[in-house]
Amino acid sequence: MKMAHLITNCIFSASPAVKTFSGSPGYCCNVGQLQNSKSSNLSLKSSFKRQKKSYVTCASAAVQGQTQTPLTGSQEVSGHSSSKPKKVMVIGGDGYCGWATALHLSNKGYEVAIVDNLVRRLFDHQLGLDSLTPITSIQNRVRRWKSLTGKTIQLFIGDICDFDFLSEAFKSFEPDAAVHFGEQRSAPYSMIDRSRAVYTQHNNVIGTLNVLFAIKEYSEECHLVKLGTMGEYGTPNIDIEEGFITITHNGRTDTLPYPKQASSFYHLSKVHDSHNIAFTCKAWGIRATDLNQGVVYGVRTDETAMHEELSNRFDYDGVFGTALNRFCVQAAVGHPLTVYGKGGQTRGYLDIRDTVQCVELAIANPAKPGEFRVFNQFTEQFSVNDLAKLVTAAGAKLGLDVQTKSVPNPRVEAEEHYYNAKHTKLIELGLEPHLLSDSLLDSLLNFAVQYKDRVDTAQIMPSVSWKKMGAKPRTVSV
Amino acid sequence: MKMAHLITNCIFSASPAVKTFSGSPGYCCNVGQLQNSKSSNLSLKSSFKRQKKSYVTCASAAVQGQTQTPLTGSQEVSGHSSSKPKKVMVIGGDGYCGWATALHLSNKGYEVAIVDNLVRRLFDHQLGLDSLTPITSIQNRVRRWKSLTGKTIQLFIGDICDFDFLSEAFKSFEPDAAVHFGEQRSAPYSMIDRSRAVYTQHNNVIGTLNVLFAIKEYSEECHLVKLGTMGEYGTPNIDIEEGFITITHNGRTDTLPYPKQASSFYHLSKVHDSHNIAFTCKAWGIRATDLNQGVVYGVRTDETAMHEELSNRFDYDGVFGTALNRFCVQAAVGHPLTVYGKGGQTRGYLDIRDTVQCVELAIANPAKPGEFRVFNQFTEQFSVNDLAKLVTAAGAKLGLDVQTKSVPNPRVEAEEHYYNAKHTKLIELGLEPHLLSDSLLDSLLNFAVQYKDRVDTAQIMPSVSWKKMGAKPRTVSV
Repeated sequence: MKMAHLITNCIFSASPAVKTFSGSPGYCCNVGQLQNSKSSNLSLKSSFKRQKKSYVTCASAAVQGQTQTPLTGSQEVSGHSSSKPKKVMVIGGDGYCGWATALHLSNKGYEVAIVDNLVRRLFDHQLGLDSLTPITSIQNRVRRWKSLTGKTIQLFIGDICDFDFLSEAFKSFEPDAAVHFGEQRSAPYSMIDRSRAVYTQHNNVIGTLNVLFAIKEYSEECHLVKLGTMGEYGTPNIDIEEGFITITHNGRTDTLPYPKQASSFYHLSKVHDSHNIAFTCKAWGIRATDLNQGVVYGVRTDETAMHEELSNRFDYDGVFGTALNRFCVQAAVGHPLTVYGKGGQTRGYLDIRDTVQCVELAIANPAKPGEFRVFNQFTEQFSVNDLAKLVTAAGAKLGLDVQTKSVPNPRVEAEEHYYNAKHTKLIELGLEPHLLSDSLLDSLLNFAVQYKDRVDTAQIMPSVSWKKMGAKPRTVSV
Repeated sequence: MKMAHLITNCIFSASPAVKTFSGSPGYCCNVGQLQNSKSSNLSLKSSFKRQKKSYVTCASAAVQGQTQTPLTGSQEVSGHSSSKPKKVMVIGGDGYCGWATALHLSNKGYEVAIVDNLVRRLFDHQLGLDSLTPITSIQNRVRRWKSLTGKTIQLFIGDICDFDFLSEAFKSFEPDAAVHFGEQRSAPYSMIDRSRAVYTQHNNVIGTLNVLFAIKEYSEECHLVKLGTMGEYGTPNIDIEEGFITITHNGRTDTLPYPKQASSFYHLSKVHDSHNIAFTCKAWGIRATDLNQGVVYGVRTDETAMHEELSNRFDYDGVFGTALNRFCVQAAVGHPLTVYGKGGQTRGYLDIRDTVQCVELAIANPAKPGEFRVFNQFTEQFSVNDLAKLVTAAGAKLGLDVQTKSVPNPRVEAEEHYYNAKHTKLIELGLEPHLLSDSLLDSLLNFAVQYKDRVDTAQIMPSVSWKKMGAKPRTVSV
């Protein structure tokens, strides 16, 4: 592999990871000049060898180093039929959903740039957490992608709260669509203490405002595809619609934004974003799709499975780990599944392979200028107890004696409630869901078992309490 | 008047006016040591002499310097019947509504502290604006109040986005109620350019988060009385309720937050605040009242009318001036009343004497722990055309030939729409509205006529366009 192949366009920002909105200029450099080209170390390779046997199945040929990989899932889709491929900026493209999406879009023929300040990696350092799967640097990731597929992913390393940096990225890349995953995305993280709550709302709200201003100023036709959350709706006692609800009241009727009842400073930040975006669609003619995503599970997509250096992160801890992934790790290490309270909490869930599919469908079928669309992005509803039962059954097949334990609920939420959320709009656009099958559960659990030596059991338990949250800096149990 | 009378408890913060959320410690000092005790200058006195003749009627005796002024309006009310008066922190107590409220509460027997970073005065400097009424320094204001009434208003000068400063204020004052006016409160200001939009949302959202954390940490029983805006609701085609609406949908019923459709970054910041506050009431047991206020008009209250140094600010410019006040100034100087577009825009309005009355009613009848109450705080609905007609008629009585001119609407809003907003909850608590009578209009217009030499006609026209807003710093016409 020659150095020439490693060169990506890259802007590094001088900004610190946790920034205020006062701008500081970014500067350009060549990643090949800054980074050591060594792609992995021995222990990383060794840990992945086990993985490949059971879990990496679709694209094992790709791991051999060929430069152009045939598409392994659905074929390239419409939406960029003109000779020039659509350019998609993936903000937060180094994260769990963002990385999988960036690769998927690149594989589908889109021209992709990742914008990320890598602060998610800093959170791991600060809280003493780690992905179950070893993940390599973003620079190594995009180099490996290039060497395997011949496709370039541009890298803009910097903070979107720094408008000067974001402006340069927009002017340089000129995106047709901006997919915005670039937010602090953990409810427990936002509930650790005041400074994390303030950070979450500042970072998410101001970052999104900056993206809106960048679109208005530099790429007026650019379609914003924004990751929201099903948690914006809360758990109302009526059916949840997709973004809007028609209300008849005192003899008159209007279709209005669906009422929001978010239950963490993180979820609230997404509510704020949604209101801000809706306003700019109306006032400026921005075109936007708000993807109210459910809880994502799984780790493998066709693209991340191509090579160990493309592996996605897998969080199982009490701060960033989502329910099903965490349960699989608990089952793998013989820890009781920790159900919060009564376990009747019901939410929408989806496979990460559907996350990448949904985002691509939104991009391929863009909102009209001035349109604010909301899609509920999940495929099935489960209660926490449902998930515990599924993992227990899957564990039994592997010979694991999986126990379940109710722990005091660290959150303030209804533990038994009505929940029926619509999710038809993405199906109408062509989503073919990967439902939570026995075989997916088996392979996810098997995956966790293979990585169990890397599990830090201290991180499994909930460590953040909504009620105990205070103004003073709080330590999270280590 | 001896120096000893001038001493107020005061914390000055070292923070710059426009701050990020990174804290910087405040420090204490004595206002008497820092400030010149000279209370006013000749030109100020001279300009107020004219005012007193026609407008300052209730409390002319008070101007003579007596130390205890009899109550001029309604008598002291319940809610602090115990021997120890209720302590109320008025955040933003140097502003238009905040100053009038601080004096009113002090007059009613509450122990009052003002928390303000005085940034509203900086906006005037930066945009080349000025209050129609000369206003003196906050230090002179509270000294004059002390000399007239014997009542002390404590001053905490600093930025609530600086949590260290806010913490010290809470620990020192130990409020029973915190009235929060301390936000950037102009829709046009928030629409000047990106930096003002970001400033508005950062300042308002983070400031309010800090107040919530300060209450949780230092004054758990403290009742938050937060100024919201009727603009949070937008102009839906159904009746507007007070905060919540009961929806029956697909055979099920729930009472949910009323849907929000704000139409400026300022109005959106209040929507964000409301969601954040509602969450903390649920999660932490905060007690809060959200006062969704209409457009305020007038300038005189019983207390601000006592002395020229207690005079309230009166904004008539295109950025901070509200419709009726601005129309009166336009009529006074012979400028056509500038109706935006068709003029069918209908909103709730109230007299500033009702602002102070409503806030006191909310404090005297606090929300329960964990309760998030929303009151719609206005007394009457008018369209812009309605107001123009009223001012035209009042002008005719003064011999003024008042013209009306439609100007291109700088905002993005419906110019003809249904509007019917409920506002009964404050009435049920005892609000006795000052409706927009002919005599009030006459005196307001007369007031504007008396100050017409101070009017800068260049500031009257709308200077901020929603559609022309951009990312780059924009000048506002001078």
